[in-house]
Amino acid sequence: MAAKCTVRSPSNIAFIKYWGAKDLDQAIPINPSLSMTLTNCYSRSTVEWVSEDGEHEIQWRTSSGDFEAAPPAFADRVRQHLDFLRRWAKIEGRFRIATENSFPSAAGLASSASGFSALTLATLGAIGRQTSTAEESALARLSGSGSAARSVLGGYVEWPASSSFGALSSRAECYACQVMPAEHWDLRNVIAVVERGAKLISSLDGHRRAQTSPYFHTRQRRLPGRLKAVRRAIETRDFERLGKVIETEAIDLHCVAMTSEPAIFYWSPATLTILEAVRAMRMDGIAAFSTMDAGANVHVICQPEVEGEVAQRLEQLDIELSLIRDCVGPGPVVEDEHLF
Amino acid sequence: MAAKCTVRSPSNIAFIKYWGAKDLDQAIPINPSLSMTLTNCYSRSTVEWVSEDGEHEIQWRTSSGDFEAAPPAFADRVRQHLDFLRRWAKIEGRFRIATENSFPSAAGLASSASGFSALTLATLGAIGRQTSTAEESALARLSGSGSAARSVLGGYVEWPASSSFGALSSRAECYACQVMPAEHWDLRNVIAVVERGAKLISSLDGHRRAQTSPYFHTRQRRLPGRLKAVRRAIETRDFERLGKVIETEAIDLHCVAMTSEPAIFYWSPATLTILEAVRAMRMDGIAAFSTMDAGANVHVICQPEVEGEVAQRLEQLDIELSLIRDCVGPGPVVEDEHLF
Repeated sequence: MAAKCTVRSPSNIAFIKYWGAKDLDQAIPINPSLSMTLTNCYSRSTVEWVSEDGEHEIQWRTSSGDFEAAPPAFADRVRQHLDFLRRWAKIEGRFRIATENSFPSAAGLASSASGFSALTLATLGAIGRQTSTAEESALARLSGSGSAARSVLGGYVEWPASSSFGALSSRAECYACQVMPAEHWDLRNVIAVVERGAKLISSLDGHRRAQTSPYFHTRQRRLPGRLKAVRRAIETRDFERLGKVIETEAIDLHCVAMTSEPAIFYWSPATLTILEAVRAMRMDGIAAFSTMDAGANVHVICQPEVEGEVAQRLEQLDIELSLIRDCVGPGPVVEDEHLF
Repeated sequence: MAAKCTVRSPSNIAFIKYWGAKDLDQAIPINPSLSMTLTNCYSRSTVEWVSEDGEHEIQWRTSSGDFEAAPPAFADRVRQHLDFLRRWAKIEGRFRIATENSFPSAAGLASSASGFSALTLATLGAIGRQTSTAEESALARLSGSGSAARSVLGGYVEWPASSSFGALSSRAECYACQVMPAEHWDLRNVIAVVERGAKLISSLDGHRRAQTSPYFHTRQRRLPGRLKAVRRAIETRDFERLGKVIETEAIDLHCVAMTSEPAIFYWSPATLTILEAVRAMRMDGIAAFSTMDAGANVHVICQPEVEGEVAQRLEQLDIELSLIRDCVGPGPVVEDEHLF
C-alpha cells in the first residue's frame, strides 16, 4: 500500500509574537500569539507513505532548483516529526518526502511554520487520516515549530497561551483558531528581504533565552492588552490601531532578544534603514507599519490602496533588498500535482 | 570692573546612563550614573564679566571656524544659565561669552556636558568666585544638562541618584564625585562618528519620555547592581567585567528609548554595523566593548594595547565614519589664551 499527497501551506506573519515556551519540546507557548496567514510565501510538501520498513527519505529543493537530500539539521527535525506522526497514527511503514519553499528559508520569514504545516497536512493526507482543524494545528505545532500551529489555518489566526490549558491536557488542547477569515480584510505585506541567508540564532534558541531578558516578564504583562487591541482592530478593520500595536510589539520582541543573556541581535543595518523609511512614509501620509519576526527582514503591512507606493518607496532605498509582495490568504491547499 | 576666564572642559562617556529625571528643570536624576571623563572631545569657553547692564553676548565657533552669534535654541539655554549664575552669585552686570567644541555638537557625544561644564567654570573664574568641586558640579548640573555635573571632574565620576537626597536639600546636594582619578586606569575610547548632525530628539525630550517605556522601571531595578559592578570593575581594573556591563547597559538604554511613547530611535544603520564589528572583534580575541549615549555614534572602549587594532578594524568597515581617538583624562583646565 502506498499513498501520496501534496500540500501547499503558506507562511504567516505574527502581529503578536510567540517568544518563550513553557515546554519547548512540545511547543507550549508562554504567551498567546496572533498572525496573518500569507499567500505567496509558502512551502509545498509531497509525502508518500510506503508500507515497507526503512529510513524516511527526505529531499528538498535547493536554490539551484534540483531536489537533493536535505541537510542533516533540517532532515533530523523532519524525521522526528514523521516518527511522531507515525506513532500518533499507529501505523507502520516509512515516508518519502520532498519539500520546497517559494521564499528564502530560515531568514525570519517563518519557513519552518509553512514547512511543518505543509509536511503535517501532506502526511495526514498520505495516510488518509481525516481530522479536525484543531487537531491538525496541534499536530503541526508538535513538529517543534510552534508557529506551524497557526499556518494550518487561513486569514487571521490566534494561538492562545498555555495558561488557558490544564497541565495534563495541554498537549492536545494547544492549537490555533481562526479569528477572522481572509475575506474579512484584505491586508498586504510588502516584505523587504535584506538577508536571504539563514539567521545565526534559530528561533528555538531564541525561545530558550527569552526568559533571561529582564524585560521578558514586563512584556508578558503587556501582551493581553495588546492581543485584545489587535483582535479588536481586525474585527473593526481599524488599520491605524492595528499598525501602531504591531509595530510596538515587534520592537518589543527585539528588545527582549537584545537584552537576553547572551544577547541576540537579529537586526541588520538595512533593517534600520527600512524601519526609518516606514516611519517616513507615515509622515508623508502613507499608512504602513513594520513588523519583524526573529530575523532581519521587515514585513511592511499596509492596505491595498497604498501597496504600490510602499513597494516603490522601499525599492528606492539605497540598500540591497528584494521585495516579496504578499497578502492575507485562505490557508493551505491540497494540490493535484506532486513534487515526485 | 571686568574679568575674563577661559576654561577647557572635556566631554564624558557614561558607562551607566542618566535617563529619566525626577525634576528635569533642576536636572535631578532618577538613577545614578557613572562616566569616564574624556580628553580630546572638549568644549572651550571664554567668559567675560562686564559690569554695565544689558544683554549677554553669546558667540560660538561655527564649522567654518568663525565666531558668530549662537543660534537661538542654544543661546537661550546659555542665557538662562548665565542669569541663574548671576542670581546665585548675587552680582550685577552681564556676560560676553564665546564657546567652541573640538567635536560634533548634539550628536550624542555629550557636547552639552562639556559645553555647560566649561561655561559654568569659566563664569565662576570670570567673577572670581572660588567654590568646592561639589558646588561646581551642582552649578553645572543646573544648566539643565545634567551630565555637565560629571564633566567638571576628571577620571571616573559617579553622580548619585536623587533618592539619596532629602526632598528639600536636593538642589544643592545633587552633585557628582570622583570614583577614581584618570591615572588609576588608562582606558581608551575610539569613537566611531557616523552622524555628525544634531540628533532629532534631544536628550531633554528623551528624559521626558523615559518613564513612558514599559521597561523603564525594570531597568531602574537593574541599575544598583550594575553600578556596583562598574565601580568594582574600575577599582580592580577588571576590563572584561566592565565591558560586559557597559555594553548591556547601553543596549538597555536604547531599548527603553525605542519602547517609549512615542518611540525614540537613535541608532542609524551604521550604528548596527559597528556594534556587530565590535562583537566580531571579541570573537577574534580583541577586548573591546561598545557603548552609545543618546545618539547614533558608538564609543568603543578598550585598553591601550588594542586601541590601534580597534581603530584599524573600524576604519576597514564599508561605511562612512570618522574616528575620534580619545582616552580618560584629568578634567577641566583653566587656559591662559582666550577666545576673544
